[in-house]
Formats: sequence, structure tokens, C-alpha cells
Amino acid sequence: MQVGFIGLGLMGAPMARHLLHAGHHLHLWARRPATLVPFADTGAVIHQSPAEMAATVDVVFTMVADGPDVEQVLLGPRGIVEGAHPGLVVVDMSTIAPAIARDLNTRLAAHDIAFLDAPVSGGERGAREATLTIMVGGAADIFERIRPLFSLMGKSVSLIGPAGAGQVAKACNQILTGVGVMALAEALNFARTSGVDPANVRQALLGGFAYSRILENHGQRMLDRDFTPGFKAWMHQKDLRIVLEEAQRMGLMLPSTATTAQALNALVGSGHGEDDSIALIRLLERMGEAWV
Amino acid sequence: MQVGFIGLGLMGAPMARHLLHAGHHLHLWARRPATLVPFADTGAVIHQSPAEMAATVDVVFTMVADGPDVEQVLLGPRGIVEGAHPGLVVVDMSTIAPAIARDLNTRLAAHDIAFLDAPVSGGERGAREATLTIMVGGAADIFERIRPLFSLMGKSVSLIGPAGAGQVAKACNQILTGVGVMALAEALNFARTSGVDPANVRQALLGGFAYSRILENHGQRMLDRDFTPGFKAWMHQKDLRIVLEEAQRMGLMLPSTATTAQALNALVGSGHGEDDSIALIRLLERMGEAWV
Repeated sequence: MQVGFIGLGLMGAPMARHLLHAGHHLHLWARRPATLVPFADTGAVIHQSPAEMAATVDVVFTMVADGPDVEQVLLGPRGIVEGAHPGLVVVDMSTIAPAIARDLNTRLAAHDIAFLDAPVSGGERGAREATLTIMVGGAADIFERIRPLFSLMGKSVSLIGPAGAGQVAKACNQILTGVGVMALAEALNFARTSGVDPANVRQALLGGFAYSRILENHGQRMLDRDFTPGFKAWMHQKDLRIVLEEAQRMGLMLPSTATTAQALNALVGSGHGEDDSIALIRLLERMGEAWV
Repeated sequence: MQVGFIGLGLMGAPMARHLLHAGHHLHLWARRPATLVPFADTGAVIHQSPAEMAATVDVVFTMVADGPDVEQVLLGPRGIVEGAHPGLVVVDMSTIAPAIARDLNTRLAAHDIAFLDAPVSGGERGAREATLTIMVGGAADIFERIRPLFSLMGKSVSLIGPAGAGQVAKACNQILTGVGVMALAEALNFARTSGVDPANVRQALLGGFAYSRILENHGQRMLDRDFTPGFKAWMHQKDLRIVLEEAQRMGLMLPSTATTAQALNALVGSGHGEDDSIALIRLLERMGEAWV
């Protein structure tokens, strides 16, 4: 298949590579040409604009930072829409607001372009190892057509519902992981301050009802004081901003999400935005009392 | 072994029965004699006071509601201490403040009584099926002596550290489960209000990094609107009160725990204290919009 990919960052580059290695013809365009360099000798076709790419591919994947970036690539000058042919499929794998995903779906439909929102979880490691969780919103027939490509990038691929539903599932994921990290930071810091080895607490709790992958993985990294991302604090902050904007729009209260967002504000504001969000535990430690 | 058991409630009764079925000689005393009735034809010895029981047993288990109840049974009039012989082991499996557990350990040591704090997680079902997680604080040699009895009641039995450490681990467990339920309630209510089937979101997230036993089990029960306990909201409220009192004593902030405790206050205050704590989701729903 002729496959376009836009957004060759930490996540996008390994995802595009999985498509290439499976034998698809890869088409690339990048706002930052430096991200194209690792693809120089791969046979991938480099385009001068999204519009030019759109004319020659069956499907375009986008994996960029936020909603306005997606809009720019799809609907901006020399964007996908300008070069698109009827039947083109656009799959946005970025994490953006559900409302923007629904709006893009409507605007692309007016140009006979099919759209899926398909955000992912699993981080850089999941992208490298093709073990991402991919949460998809859109029409079932389009989903089935693209599913073989998703399967090259992720191991858990689900159609959640109509346009925007993938982003809603991703929002739920970010609530659970954000608040989950916050609660774990509180628990392990509580144990340590109580004079109890937090490693023993983690080990005991793994066997019971408090088991979570966050306790298992992030718990170990908190014990190791390993704050390298993983998933950067500023990105989690951005994702919870999207969730809280949606909550305000819908008239919902999300108390523990809001509390965690405040703590991420303080973490990023302290100059630790590039650390993993598990660095939240440092905010909770009594001043002058670091494990390391 | 001659084994005493005090506190034959929802949890304690099946736990005592496991000891009996393993061939131990069971000795009982109860503040509420009605709780003794189901043990009438079991061969268990009924005592007139904790002191009388203490004279004839090797070990006493207590499983009562809160710290003052444990103190009363152990150190009150006709309490365990009054009848105790040197070498008696007292094992408190209630959930109480770590500071009280440490204090009990010290006061019992003055009477040559060994003490373990050994709170559990897993709820009534875990008690019935002998699959409790048992988190123990105290001396290693006493723990090893009692371990075979613990193994009759639970499947994950850990010595966490010195006196009080079991209660600290339990506090951490209650932070993770309480905040975990709150975050899940926020996420599933967010999905539903967004017009997305929360069952699809749960299913998709089970395969990824947001996996937890809370998502799997409590998530399904939230979808089923099954608010029967499980674990009652007023008991979770009590446990988080203990955690937050300890936090104040130690000078720690626990933002997401405090937020969850506030929500439990509102749930219990709305007359739903006997519901499972997963009923937190009802607090978040927009007024007049119930799933059922």
C-alpha cells in the first residue's frame, strides 16, 4: 500500500519504520527536515508538501503534538486536503481534544476524505516494540480497512465508537495513568516517611487488589529514582489540560484529575517538564529530604 | 494449636472458620454474643472474657473495627493482658493507625506478650476464599511462628517491617484503591457523558498500561451499576481518615488521597455509606442523569 506518514518524532519515527519493514511504500513529509535524515536510504519517498503526498497515497498517518498542528497539516496551506483524491483515508494518531477530532471528521468528509482518530498509549517503548494500545474512533468499514496497518504498530487495537471516540478513550487512559501515578507517589512517600521500606510495600501490594501495571513498572522506577522518560511530565500536563477543557465544556467534575493536573503544573513549573511524570513523587517529599 | 479469635464479623467469621477447618482448637469471645451462634456446634470453646481466653491459648487474633476497639479487648477491663501468660502472641488483623499499632506493641511487650500487626486486603470474598493479602509488622521470629496460620487465611503473606509496618502497607493499599476507584469513576463518567460506551473504553484500556485489577473488577461492577459491597464506603472513609491523620502527624501532603476522602465524605453523608465505595461514580454524574 502507498502510505504517508507525517510526524517523525520519538513516537512517529519507529511507527513509520514498522510500516516500511512490512513492505509498504512509505511517503514522508516533515516540518522539521532533520527528522527525515534517518529515512534517507530506506526507499521512502520525500514530498515537498502534505498536498503533494496526498495525491499519491492511499492513507496518511499523522502523529504530531496537538490539535492545531493536525489542523495545519490537514487543512492549512498546501495541506492534505489540497492534494487529496476521493477515497483517501486520514488517520490521526496524535492525542488531541475529542471535539477537534469530531470537527476534523466533519470537515474532511466534505472533501470525500475518510477520517479515523486513533491515539495510542504505551509510550516510546511501545512504539519501538510495536506493542502500542491503539484506540480508534470512526466508521467500522474504514477501521477494518486500516486494521492491518494498525496491527503493525500495536498489539491491542480497538474500535471504540464513532468519530472522536478514540480520543475519549485516550482521555480516560490519561486520567487513569495520571491519577494513578499521583496516588502511587503519595503511597510510596507515605511509606518511606513512616520509616517503612517502600520496596517491601510495593512487593506486598503487587499480590493483591491494588495491583496495577503502574504499581509494577512506575513503582519500580520511583524506587530506582529513575526519572528519565518514558512519558514526559509536560505531555501529561497537556493531555490533562485537554481532559479538563472537555470536562468544563460538558459540565462535569473531575476532582482527582484536577488535583493531579495541579501537581503536574507545579512539576513542570519547577523546571522538570522533561522528566517522566513519575517525578511527581519529588513534589511530595518534605523539603531537603530526597531519596538521592 | 490453641487459637483465640475475637471479632467474628463479615471478615472475621470466615477467617476463624479456616483455622478451625485446619484442625486448630478454636477459642472465641464476642462482645456481641449473636456472632457466636454460627459456631455453636463446631467444638469451639466460648469464653466469658478475653482474659479467660488468654490463659488457655497460644495465640489470639483480633479482627475488629478500629483502634479503640483493639485497645479495649487487649488492655481494657478483663482484657487479654489480665489473663495472659508469658510467650502469648497477639495478632491484630484490624485496620488501625500505625501509631496505635506501635504503641500496642510497646505496651504488650511490657507484659512479655509478642505482638504482630497484620491487616488484610481482599474484602469479604478474600476472607471467604482464603485469598487475602496479609501485610505484617513485627519481629521476624514471631512472624515465622504464625506464618502457617496466616497461610490458612490468605494467599499473599508478607513481613513488611517492624511493628506498625503492616498498618503502613495497609494505609498505602487504601490510598491506591481509594484514589484508584475515584479516578476510574471520573474516567467512566467522562466517557459516558462524551457519548462513548464506557464498556468499550474499559475493554480497550485493559490491554494497555492503564491495566489494574480495579479497572477489571470495579470497572465491570460500575458498568453493571452493582453497588453492593464488596468494601463499604464508610469503611474506606474511616481508613482514609487514619491515613490523613498520620499524614498530618508526619507533615506530609497527600493531595489525591485528600480529594478522594472528601468525595467519600459526600457519599457517606448522602446516605450511601453502606454501598460499595464504587458508588463514588454516582456523585460525579450530572444531576438527574443516572445510568439506571
